[in-house]
Amino acid sequence: MLVAVGIYKVKVQWGDCDGARIVFYPNFFRWFDEATRNLFESRGLPWVEMIDRYGTRGVPLVDARATFRRPARFGDALEIATRVTRWGSRSFELAHDIRIGSEVAVEGRETRIWGVSDPSNPEGLKAGHIPDAVKALIPAEPA
Amino acid sequence: MLVAVGIYKVKVQWGDCDGARIVFYPNFFRWFDEATRNLFESRGLPWVEMIDRYGTRGVPLVDARATFRRPARFGDALEIATRVTRWGSRSFELAHDIRIGSEVAVEGRETRIWGVSDPSNPEGLKAGHIPDAVKALIPAEPA
Amino acid sequence: MLVAVGIYKVKVQWGDCDGARIVFYPNFFRWFDEATRNLFESRGLPWVEMIDRYGTRGVPLVDARATFRRPARFGDALEIATRVTRWGSRSFELAHDIRIGSEVAVEGRETRIWGVSDPSNPEGLKAGHIPDAVKALIPAEPA
Amino acid sequence: MLVAVGIYKVKVQWGDCDGARIVFYPNFFRWFDEATRNLFESRGLPWVEMIDRYGTRGVPLVDARATFRRPARFGDALEIATRVTRWGSRSFELAHDIRIGSEVAVEGRETRIWGVSDPSNPEGLKAGHIPDAVKALIPAEPA
Repeated sequence: MLVAVGIYKVKVQWGDCDGARIVFYPNFFRWFDEATRNLFESRGLPWVEMIDRYGTRGVPLVDARATFRRPARFGDALEIATRVTRWGSRSFELAHDIRIGSEVAVEGRETRIWGVSDPSNPEGLKAGHIPDAVKALIPAEPA
Repeated sequence: MLVAVGIYKVKVQWGDCDGARIVFYPNFFRWFDEATRNLFESRGLPWVEMIDRYGTRGVPLVDARATFRRPARFGDALEIATRVTRWGSRSFELAHDIRIGSEVAVEGRETRIWGVSDPSNPEGLKAGHIPDAVKALIPAEPA
Repeated sequence: MLVAVGIYKVKVQWGDCDGARIVFYPNFFRWFDEATRNLFESRGLPWVEMIDRYGTRGVPLVDARATFRRPARFGDALEIATRVTRWGSRSFELAHDIRIGSEVAVEGRETRIWGVSDPSNPEGLKAGHIPDAVKALIPAEPA
Repeated sequence: MLVAVGIYKVKVQWGDCDGARIVFYPNFFRWFDEATRNLFESRGLPWVEMIDRYGTRGVPLVDARATFRRPARFGDALEIATRVTRWGSRSFELAHDIRIGSEVAVEGRETRIWGVSDPSNPEGLKAGHIPDAVKALIPAEPA
């Protein structure tokens, strides 16, 4: 079974770390966001095209979670492997595994909606149907 | 039953928001971290004293989670109510409820360890016993 | 001579500091941005009204500078005093003095344009005339 | 005349941008900091070795400045060219040119000290002599 996996690499910078010289943990969620966009892009869906071709205006979060198995330090080379674990009709779930060398440092999970313009609220987004073409380009893990 | 609740207020700044003009979600975890320290401080446990009095070197994360119920926008006044939901012997759990006015916008959960110096690894931390005095100062939710 | 001075207070958070346990310096510019908006708001010009009343779409930077006189550390209470040092026809200059207690820690300078929509480029901004009403509400330093 | 130039590449991420969908400007200073470390590393001076070999504890800022010539947007590929413009005995100056394609978007300048431990203040740093070996490895612009 084919599952699309995006690989996103991050080198931990001095400014990513706190006074304990380990990554200040909200940065991992920043990298999850970057890794999500990287997965789409690696499958031929750069963000700008997604807006033009499919009318999506963003993929806002419903839920985000991370389990921290070991700290990451200044200079560490992180490899983030991202896959879709479930496509719903209007939402989808992602898993992000962050490895340092062969060790898993962080395991992340996100649930996002497929955001489209909300005619009743120009400032707002609502959850729209995820196009089948997008699901086909990014095969999810089997249930 | 007394439960200690720390209140931490944040006004959403322009730079906290992304191109959709809602809070870029990793910032909520940054505010959870600030709200955690604020809870300790509001109970007479400023961080510097915790280092001197109890030898703690930090409270690193084991797990963090957030559920997003509605977006927060530039200028919104957030009120974060933080409480300890469980004191273990070496770890503890926190809940953070973020309200905008009377509406809950985000619900957060964190599990942290009580970090103390690790003599076998000068760079590292290990989980130490949480002092009873600390637990007494910050009454947790009843189980 | 009356000069409008906005006071913006920041308590240095753990996540604002780097591995040397001093503020990671880009954060000072983040606070300059917040202090700029705070000055306008303190003079009766909240950002949302500026959009509606005066059509401004932002005040993007042309130049920014900071001189660092002493480090700021976790827990320090910063007081940022912000004033306009020059109103031009389409741009303006600000000074931000950051004090810790009675000591000046950082001196900042920004030059910003008055951004308005650019009909020839829907994504872009161009420099527009600064309304006299705005200049009157925020008296600048005498030249 | 040989001048050492470090090249540091950044792809602008969604979370780097603000509600105007351009880079929130403090991020440029974050990238200057990363580009400074990258220059040292590209010349055989990774940060960890600098601590061990030369006793430096950091290169804190005295002054930082940026001139913004055009905005950078989500997805832009930035190339930051960094060089030392002056080696003093205890401080040094850097220039950072950020290009998008062939256009200069931002010009940055930093003045930093060579930080060493301060025996009279365990929390502090003081400016120490910059080793000649470091200056030789990173030839500066001729005066």
